[in-house]
Amino acid sequence: MSEGSPRRVLIVGGGFAGMAVAKGLGGRRGVAVTLIDRRNHHLFQPLLYQVAMAGLSPAEIAAPIRGLLSKYENIQVLQGEVEGVDLVARRVQSSIGELPYDTLILAAGATHAYFGREEWEPFAPGLKTLEQATEIRRRVLEAFEAAELESDPTARRAMLTFVVVGGGPTGVELAGALGEMSRFTLARDFRHIDPTLARVILIEAGDRILASFSEASSSRATRDLERLGVQVWTGSRVSEVDAEGVRVDEERLSARTVLWAAGVHASDIGGAMHGARGNDAGTDAGEDASEVKLDRQGRVHVGADLTLPGHPEVYVLGDQAHVEGEDKKPLPGVAPVAMQQGRWVAKRISAELAGKTPATAFRYVDKGQMATIGRSRAVLEVGRRRIGGMVAWLGWLFVHIYYLSGFKNRLFVLFSWAWSYFSFARGARLIVQKSWRSYPAARAALPRNAVASESSEPADAPEVASAHGFE
Amino acid sequence: MSEGSPRRVLIVGGGFAGMAVAKGLGGRRGVAVTLIDRRNHHLFQPLLYQVAMAGLSPAEIAAPIRGLLSKYENIQVLQGEVEGVDLVARRVQSSIGELPYDTLILAAGATHAYFGREEWEPFAPGLKTLEQATEIRRRVLEAFEAAELESDPTARRAMLTFVVVGGGPTGVELAGALGEMSRFTLARDFRHIDPTLARVILIEAGDRILASFSEASSSRATRDLERLGVQVWTGSRVSEVDAEGVRVDEERLSARTVLWAAGVHASDIGGAMHGARGNDAGTDAGEDASEVKLDRQGRVHVGADLTLPGHPEVYVLGDQAHVEGEDKKPLPGVAPVAMQQGRWVAKRISAELAGKTPATAFRYVDKGQMATIGRSRAVLEVGRRRIGGMVAWLGWLFVHIYYLSGFKNRLFVLFSWAWSYFSFARGARLIVQKSWRSYPAARAALPRNAVASESSEPADAPEVASAHGFE
Repeated sequence: MSEGSPRRVLIVGGGFAGMAVAKGLGGRRGVAVTLIDRRNHHLFQPLLYQVAMAGLSPAEIAAPIRGLLSKYENIQVLQGEVEGVDLVARRVQSSIGELPYDTLILAAGATHAYFGREEWEPFAPGLKTLEQATEIRRRVLEAFEAAELESDPTARRAMLTFVVVGGGPTGVELAGALGEMSRFTLARDFRHIDPTLARVILIEAGDRILASFSEASSSRATRDLERLGVQVWTGSRVSEVDAEGVRVDEERLSARTVLWAAGVHASDIGGAMHGARGNDAGTDAGEDASEVKLDRQGRVHVGADLTLPGHPEVYVLGDQAHVEGEDKKPLPGVAPVAMQQGRWVAKRISAELAGKTPATAFRYVDKGQMATIGRSRAVLEVGRRRIGGMVAWLGWLFVHIYYLSGFKNRLFVLFSWAWSYFSFARGARLIVQKSWRSYPAARAALPRNAVASESSEPADAPEVASAHGFE
Repeated sequence: MSEGSPRRVLIVGGGFAGMAVAKGLGGRRGVAVTLIDRRNHHLFQPLLYQVAMAGLSPAEIAAPIRGLLSKYENIQVLQGEVEGVDLVARRVQSSIGELPYDTLILAAGATHAYFGREEWEPFAPGLKTLEQATEIRRRVLEAFEAAELESDPTARRAMLTFVVVGGGPTGVELAGALGEMSRFTLARDFRHIDPTLARVILIEAGDRILASFSEASSSRATRDLERLGVQVWTGSRVSEVDAEGVRVDEERLSARTVLWAAGVHASDIGGAMHGARGNDAGTDAGEDASEVKLDRQGRVHVGADLTLPGHPEVYVLGDQAHVEGEDKKPLPGVAPVAMQQGRWVAKRISAELAGKTPATAFRYVDKGQMATIGRSRAVLEVGRRRIGGMVAWLGWLFVHIYYLSGFKNRLFVLFSWAWSYFSFARGARLIVQKSWRSYPAARAALPRNAVASESSEPADAPEVASAHGFE
């Protein structure tokens, strides 16, 4: 890099960490920022469960990255998927070509993980993207639709059984919202089933839910969930997931809908970093690859300054990074960690550019943690203070709306929630098909004799009519 | 049907017509209503183009049918797809079984049509469902993303060329919104392309756009479109559509994005009505089938009382019906016709049930027509009055918000529009992938020598970096 040219900062990922770096460097002289993300939108993940549970629309918790950064002339945004990093040549390989960098910020986040049981995914979707959220919404709403049409009590019971695997904040929030939706929102919508009889089961392998919280908060959350009709099964391990339901320890549980909130794994880009010298390719085997150390969840071990050991020009942030906190435990994969890291790195780079001595160690300021249960309860812990119930819920609401990106979204979400709160309605209760094409026209034209023979058979078909109150 | 049992009214379709019948019969004694729709939501189709152009979210113009009708105890809602009608046995065949009726209301609407060129659909999607709207949104936004990465001027030009086929209200609204989005919303978001240079071309085979309006309104709309940078090509016929663009008469037009607004075809259920006696199946050929007469657009010819000739118990309404107006021309496929027909039929059935003489002929009260062009212009015709510009736009806004189903949606849409109007922002600018599954993890792990050899080749890849301002 010559003296006069700006420093090329390449940010991988437009989540909380990446956006914080970009905003921190936006408008600064001497730095040319490129942000690459495979999506065109920044997602407010803490509220994703609300989309899955039909409380919010996708656009209410997501905003185009371009729009959020368009005022900064020194930032360009690219949509593409990163495939690997050549640490020596200082280039990132991506679906849209190679991108050189002087400073690299890896903040590609995490995805849900099944830890070797990837075949469970079709039966138990996770919740990390908008597509997954609308898919979960579709499955949940379709389960009630199917139950309304089902006359066999056993089958109907499986349709009205919802299993959430994993008792962390996401699992608790999903289970709480499910319980609430069946008890209040859908209660009057059906004629042949009683949605309030839906079973929601939250399964946690550990001995209590919300393990990162205090025991008091954990048992308070359990009580709040049970009040919404959610059964909390702790100390229970899921050993099988298939189209019919789950096996929990030795017990078989028939459930049409299973949701996965039991684990995450960092983006694979960490494993695709290579120290090999880019130009003399061929035989130089992986002795340098050992410099990138991953933990069990695929997170990259970085130093106190958030850089890769031996590579002061490569930062790893957010859910992708393994950084030890003051208690020697790795920092949790939550938005505040990512945002603080992003701001800290932006300041550090700015200090370097200004010729000042940069800070040497990132320190996470823990402002507390929270989880919400339904529409008026939450648990909130700040330092040693533990708050529950409505007060905690209002605190949760305030914090989430405060941090939502973009003025419009904040107002919209507030309005949407106010509406849901007072009406028990869930406005985004849409079942949207996976395919966008129009339905095949040919299906409508049944041959005439098929019709006649069908109606003379005592098959399943007539049951629908008789089971649905045409007497 | 015995004297004491309620009359079974089966409504096929939860659009404007079907919902109007259901609401009209809701809560009425002596009638048991079943509404079947393949979607779980009622869609406010006149605003669908706003979803396609990222101005509104799907949930803002759609509401669950169950929720809209849940207060009526005598109505049940089923989600399923109708496949045929047995007129003699008085049963409807559907994906969820057979449904008997005493009175049938067919109001299954229309879909976009290519009139024998169905192979064009993948290249030129139509706009009739939420899925299609979000697909169009994805295509349009991705075209700008692709252009930002493209260094070849010819390819880039094709990416920034948008063709809308069909100069009716939908085509005009799409083209206007596209022109506006590129000129205002996206203008500052990109670094390497100038979105304001995007070409939007509206192609109409007839000699003017908005043929159902007066010539004055039509030329006013043309002027308004041109002011937004839209090129209006009248008297031009599309003879080919493929992945590279369209052929218009003899000219080849390279365009990555082509949208279809050139024709609709009624739902095929009309053609799947059979007068055969259901029980002695086999050889009785189609002499009765001639009683169901379809027009060229697949609409069912019905009498002045909206019933099928020879079948006073079968009504056909809305886009599915061919009904002549006072000028002997078929009534247009617009929401007011569908709603008025639905209300009229509900009243007629109620009158019969009450032992009164039912009305014999439906009469459409034409309250005028309107089309909007961008964010502050519209054309509006009420009788002989023609209004254009801002006043017409405000009229359009008022009418559409007034008719939006559900109080929440009305306020939301108003708020969303007010926001867009003052900020030029389009909040729903999300590119959501078609697949909900997480990205394949394996892709990230490029073999190391592949990386090395790629970077030594003078292929496309390095251009991206050099073309994007890392100097």
